[in-house]
Amino acid sequence: MTQLRRDPMIGQWVNIHTDDSFGPEDYQKEDHLPRHAATCQFCPGREHQTPHEVDALRSRGSRPNGPGWQARVVPNKFPALQIEGNIDEAKDGIFDFSNGVGAHEVLIETPVHSKHLADFTREEMAGVIQLYQNRLRDLTRDRRFKYIIIFKNFGEAAGTSVEHAHSQIIALPMIPKYVLEKIEGARAYYDEHQRCVICDMVKQEYHDKKRIFTQNHDFVAFCPFVSRSSFEYWIVPRAHDSNFADMEEGKKNSLADLLRETLVRLRNCLSNPSYNYYLHVPPVNTGGKEDFHWHIVIVPKLTRTTGFELGTGFYVVRTSPEAAAGYLRNTKVTSEA
Amino acid sequence: MTQLRRDPMIGQWVNIHTDDSFGPEDYQKEDHLPRHAATCQFCPGREHQTPHEVDALRSRGSRPNGPGWQARVVPNKFPALQIEGNIDEAKDGIFDFSNGVGAHEVLIETPVHSKHLADFTREEMAGVIQLYQNRLRDLTRDRRFKYIIIFKNFGEAAGTSVEHAHSQIIALPMIPKYVLEKIEGARAYYDEHQRCVICDMVKQEYHDKKRIFTQNHDFVAFCPFVSRSSFEYWIVPRAHDSNFADMEEGKKNSLADLLRETLVRLRNCLSNPSYNYYLHVPPVNTGGKEDFHWHIVIVPKLTRTTGFELGTGFYVVRTSPEAAAGYLRNTKVTSEA
Repeated sequence: MTQLRRDPMIGQWVNIHTDDSFGPEDYQKEDHLPRHAATCQFCPGREHQTPHEVDALRSRGSRPNGPGWQARVVPNKFPALQIEGNIDEAKDGIFDFSNGVGAHEVLIETPVHSKHLADFTREEMAGVIQLYQNRLRDLTRDRRFKYIIIFKNFGEAAGTSVEHAHSQIIALPMIPKYVLEKIEGARAYYDEHQRCVICDMVKQEYHDKKRIFTQNHDFVAFCPFVSRSSFEYWIVPRAHDSNFADMEEGKKNSLADLLRETLVRLRNCLSNPSYNYYLHVPPVNTGGKEDFHWHIVIVPKLTRTTGFELGTGFYVVRTSPEAAAGYLRNTKVTSEA
Repeated sequence: MTQLRRDPMIGQWVNIHTDDSFGPEDYQKEDHLPRHAATCQFCPGREHQTPHEVDALRSRGSRPNGPGWQARVVPNKFPALQIEGNIDEAKDGIFDFSNGVGAHEVLIETPVHSKHLADFTREEMAGVIQLYQNRLRDLTRDRRFKYIIIFKNFGEAAGTSVEHAHSQIIALPMIPKYVLEKIEGARAYYDEHQRCVICDMVKQEYHDKKRIFTQNHDFVAFCPFVSRSSFEYWIVPRAHDSNFADMEEGKKNSLADLLRETLVRLRNCLSNPSYNYYLHVPPVNTGGKEDFHWHIVIVPKLTRTTGFELGTGFYVVRTSPEAAAGYLRNTKVTSEA
């Protein structure tokens, strides 16, 4: 039996298998053995193989672009967008286009080739979050950019062949469609109810008690009622918050704790799956759209997209969020899988 | 260098690599060796292992659910949606949901386990199209359904583990988001220009001469200016047409020819890649939305979705449609790869 569910923000429908939900053992297993340490450009001692770093957490006395770092940010060597130039919008008949202007950076999260986020200490994880904040603040100063997306790909199924732990940061000259839909959906919801839709989602999750699988003082982690993928989960500030970049120390540590803990649960629950995550913050340099309740969306890569999803934008979810939250809640949180 | 391009129908942006486009050899190769013929439920002689057929092309004298068929349609044994029941929309706090009511059918395209669409004769391909038409007409009679999507998954990377050639048909109780956006985008374009946006796209493709790679009297095949994937292509009726189900014999053969030819080109150009395709027709039983210019979208599965695409709805396309069309145009059309 399945249930069709409609996203309260963007109106997207998903098809959730409820009675016959897949368990963790029903998905294909992968291995993530480190194979490329010998030639990895992200390893210490090979800093000269990356473009010059734009930011880093370094031990006292160490020099930029040399060893002695805990995490560093460099421009992507093969950028999806180029940092130089103007946007130059143009028209060719019925088509609009522009130069691919933007920033594309890589955050190397650890000097240790085979270490994953789930193995990080609180301090290491807080360092990564600190660099996310730094890059958001810095890139916001470039008035050409309207949106900055921070995301991570872990494992080949999630689209990366680089096994050394890293995130990516892309600054775009426009607000991308999916983000814009969420922001406009949240605004429409606010206009109707005078309440933030994500605050209401959190409130309902606490009321329903079925999809939250862990929490701490500042953050809650749940599998959303309208998941787009099996075992998708969100980490959301419990109190309304639209300012990720200026989050203070205590809250940052709190986020570091919960992000790390949930990634350990995910790894132990699903035999170390590939995953993506992305951070949805408000747009920048647009004026008036800056009250969006930020959150992190974590999506394990367990299945392939089919022609049905491609052709409809409809998602088929084989493990219901209620079942997925149950599995994640009951998974042991030990640091080793 | 990359170019940002905006879809004239739905406003989606894509990021196209233009100067440094990937060639066919830059994508990973797969094999599609048939491995499961011995146990395949779609092979002749095992008709009793599928649910009872709802339609078939059969040789004279052969009986339903026995051998003697050229192609057959059966309900999916593991349906994404159930055919019985009412939709029963309901609300749980801020969330809308309903029963997963719909139809989910499988079209087994050939009795030969290892035969692919690219190996079909015109008659065999026209038979598949005939069954698409039959199912569209029949499912439209069920007034609960608002949209019928026909799609195909070929190869594991495209989301199927069933290697015997098949398509799927899903009837939905609502118009899915992506289709609705295209239809509303087409209507907004019509309101502004009094012309069909897809007719205008075809016209501009003939004018630009860069992205069309083959055509015949009735249909044209091109890689769209705003491709969402490398080597994506569309097959579009050259003259405005919103009625796929009642397409007459000559045009059906013409479509069979072009679909087969383009799939041979795709196979020979990219070493037999996995692919999805889907048919976008107008909605049904809705009134007033039935003038949408139908088309088929073919999407080879060459790369993985990353956190960037997931988090933005933005697509990164490593082979520009202009380059892709060039490769496909220059590929030999022999029936064997």
